[in-house]
Amino acid sequence: MFVILVYDVGQKRVAKALKTCRKYLYWVQNSVFEGDITEANLMKLKIELLNVIDTDKDSVVIYKFRSTKYSAIETFGIKKGGEENIL
Amino acid sequence: MFVILVYDVGQKRVAKALKTCRKYLYWVQNSVFEGDITEANLMKLKIELLNVIDTDKDSVVIYKFRSTKYSAIETFGIKKGGEENIL
Repeated sequence: MFVILVYDVGQKRVAKALKTCRKYLYWVQNSVFEGDITEANLMKLKIELLNVIDTDKDSVVIYKFRSTKYSAIETFGIKKGGEENIL
Repeated sequence: MFVILVYDVGQKRVAKALKTCRKYLYWVQNSVFEGDITEANLMKLKIELLNVIDTDKDSVVIYKFRSTKYSAIETFGIKKGGEENIL
């Protein structure tokens, strides 16, 4: 399954949330992650994220796709994420 | 074409960016938008957004899908966006 995950997490928790998401997904940009993931690993990711974020203040959106990836991705503005950024 | 758009825009510009995106797309949550859009309207949206954001500080990611929508969407944490929030 291919997923796109977007979070909005407070400054204090963002480093941990980033680290958690990068264990399972590719970091596209800033608060956006994507990748192929199994249902089991997605469940793990969600549990780990719920331990990191404050559900009264933060939010997470996960788009799940059966198989096909997107046909194109466009980005503009600054590039904050990506593989070249090693924490 | 179905698109998912995510932005990371500074506080000063976020209200204008939100208004711009909501002209063309459905507001899912916080910085996430989605919807069916023509290539022409997507071009308009990008031009309008580029007039609003600071490309040295802000970022935008647009996922383009040929036809199919996602199979599922999961959200957790606070719900900031959505149709019920009228600016």
